[in-house]
Amino acid sequence: MSEPIIVSLLDADFYKFTMGQFVLKRFPNVPVRYEFKNRTKRVLLGKFVSEEDLRKELDAVRDLRFRAEELEFLRRIETNGKRLFSEDYLLFLKDLELPPYDLKHNGETIELSFSGSWREAIYWETLALSIANELYYRSAMKKMTAFEKDAIFAEGTVRLAEKIRLLKENPEIVFSDFGTRRRFSRLWHDYAVTSLAAELPKTQFIGTSNVYLAMKHGLKPVGTMAHELFMAAAAISGDGDEQIRQSHNDVLKTWREEYGEDLSIALTDTFGSEFFFNDMTEEQARNWKGLRQDSGSPTQFGEKAIQFYREKGVDFRQKTIVFSDGLDINTILMLYRQFNGRVKCVFGWGTNLTNDLGLGALSLVVKVVEANGRGTVKLSDNPAKATGKPEDVHKYKRIFGYAAGEYKECKY
Amino acid sequence: MSEPIIVSLLDADFYKFTMGQFVLKRFPNVPVRYEFKNRTKRVLLGKFVSEEDLRKELDAVRDLRFRAEELEFLRRIETNGKRLFSEDYLLFLKDLELPPYDLKHNGETIELSFSGSWREAIYWETLALSIANELYYRSAMKKMTAFEKDAIFAEGTVRLAEKIRLLKENPEIVFSDFGTRRRFSRLWHDYAVTSLAAELPKTQFIGTSNVYLAMKHGLKPVGTMAHELFMAAAAISGDGDEQIRQSHNDVLKTWREEYGEDLSIALTDTFGSEFFFNDMTEEQARNWKGLRQDSGSPTQFGEKAIQFYREKGVDFRQKTIVFSDGLDINTILMLYRQFNGRVKCVFGWGTNLTNDLGLGALSLVVKVVEANGRGTVKLSDNPAKATGKPEDVHKYKRIFGYAAGEYKECKY
Repeated sequence: MSEPIIVSLLDADFYKFTMGQFVLKRFPNVPVRYEFKNRTKRVLLGKFVSEEDLRKELDAVRDLRFRAEELEFLRRIETNGKRLFSEDYLLFLKDLELPPYDLKHNGETIELSFSGSWREAIYWETLALSIANELYYRSAMKKMTAFEKDAIFAEGTVRLAEKIRLLKENPEIVFSDFGTRRRFSRLWHDYAVTSLAAELPKTQFIGTSNVYLAMKHGLKPVGTMAHELFMAAAAISGDGDEQIRQSHNDVLKTWREEYGEDLSIALTDTFGSEFFFNDMTEEQARNWKGLRQDSGSPTQFGEKAIQFYREKGVDFRQKTIVFSDGLDINTILMLYRQFNGRVKCVFGWGTNLTNDLGLGALSLVVKVVEANGRGTVKLSDNPAKATGKPEDVHKYKRIFGYAAGEYKECKY
Repeated sequence: MSEPIIVSLLDADFYKFTMGQFVLKRFPNVPVRYEFKNRTKRVLLGKFVSEEDLRKELDAVRDLRFRAEELEFLRRIETNGKRLFSEDYLLFLKDLELPPYDLKHNGETIELSFSGSWREAIYWETLALSIANELYYRSAMKKMTAFEKDAIFAEGTVRLAEKIRLLKENPEIVFSDFGTRRRFSRLWHDYAVTSLAAELPKTQFIGTSNVYLAMKHGLKPVGTMAHELFMAAAAISGDGDEQIRQSHNDVLKTWREEYGEDLSIALTDTFGSEFFFNDMTEEQARNWKGLRQDSGSPTQFGEKAIQFYREKGVDFRQKTIVFSDGLDINTILMLYRQFNGRVKCVFGWGTNLTNDLGLGALSLVVKVVEANGRGTVKLSDNPAKATGKPEDVHKYKRIFGYAAGEYKECKY
């Protein structure tokens, strides 16, 4: 392979940049640590991905710099009728070199982490995930015959065509590509996004989370915030229960101040959506454009959200719910039928959109595990997605009144 | 399109050459007429295939000559341990220019015929069919988007991969490609044959009826005789019942003399297999390698064939039945399970092997309709496949004791 997997630092999720600017401004000097984790235990990733290949690709990322035209693309992005990214932030990006990685490869498992200043280390997440995925699939296909490889891509194309057919049959379904981190490969991702953009109107395929592909194909870059923002902010806030609990709403407040209406889609499950709905004020319910659902039952979440808005006296038909947890076309159709006309539905379609070629997907994540020397915690509405040291998780569950993703202690 | 569809006169079925040499030697001066016919009534072919395009492609065929390396490939083919094609025949081919075609295109239907000496006109059949098919699919895809076209080829690849998977699961299934005449396109045909040859052993994918692809990919060219041989021979024999009836066995006798054991697979249904089994002698049953089934019920045919050999005292386990009528993988599996171990099964897989991309196939044929000024007749075991003027068909049914493909008047 002559060309590296990552050829542009924009080949990452848009939320890395919206969060990146936020972090640069609000948390400029916080040391953090991110860890790579393979949740798919049955696959010993180190048997597929060699240390040499992985180092080569990660090193290639560290050699990359933002190019003038890439910064110019960011410069031209507008939200709320004005520039989204400040010149200070673009200057920072211009000189950015990603911090070193720490890799231990024992032939079976891969220990990979990124330590550094939050403002710099934040960009590694989706880049590293795209690399690990692509190296895995290259390895999985290495022993295939030419025809077997053809058949894989053909299967992917047929599945993509079936998705497009169903989307054309349901033109009111609105979605964007969220599949950068778990894509089969950069080229396949590009092919899928190109095909979706060519076949569907922009009112239906509204954009992509991948900034590089957004630039390349004239699409809207889509995204707001990730769990890490709440996780790190909580760890940074101190050790006290009240500080930790309060940190979540502080993030919402400052984010809304920073980015206004356009980027006010709140991620709801960092410490469980039960807490989220209890914590969000009526004013926030009114001011925030909508909510993102990323774990637990999407149907239950949607109904709870509608009930939440109703009790706050907010017209939920004007609110957006972004569903982004493990979607496939059937789930999308089901959620669309359930919620269309009641709330504005948007689907953030990830793995199954960019990695559905019949080979099975890995569940790889890069999570912030430490901020300011304290361990971070994510609870989520799916206990399997919880992260953090057991004692920290226990503590956070107590602080956030977490009941394992169930809503029984939640008034909504 | 810069390159014509047909780029080699070898891009035809092998039986055109085995019959071609036979005709040159035994029927050197017989005027014949072939007619193109679209059996798929729902498709008005003339709306898809323009007169201009069709003429351009047919003219390109008339401009072709056999190249030295093509004749050399034919020269090296051996059967029964000696050269199959005589130097006289190769000299004839060297100078061959295909006779003119007669085309009437009224915007909806296409009337296309080929008149000339049998020895020269015989080569038009599969060339014209390959052209008509490819022009039709080009036209059908003209308005598709780039992605829709991708999806068609992807569907074809996925279906081919599924065939290959099932064939690998059943390595005793033996087949050859018979799909030249109804292929989707030359390039798709080439891709399918290339992939089959790469994925399957030569003991399973034993060859192709397409001489050009056989040469290109080092495969065995496969084929013996077609209905036209019996049809024209019957017309040439005269008007008398006995001459017409006798002509069939005369063809078998002279063919066996000419080509020996290796090419002694008899086509059985020209005048109905009922007649065939009643007419074939014990010596022929013993001397001929096997039979080809091309219409009617293949299971019923196979059982009748076994019963036929049993009553003739012939070890049917040593005999080959070539099934070649409208096969798909399910029919092949079914016939294989029914007959494997009882007779030697070979599958001559046509349309569904080279034109299974989801667009549906046309049933186009080019049939000899006149020889020596007399109308020809094919009865077949499927009344829908019968050809000939009604009075001639009636006469032939009487002569051959034909009972609409049923076996009730047949002792076998």
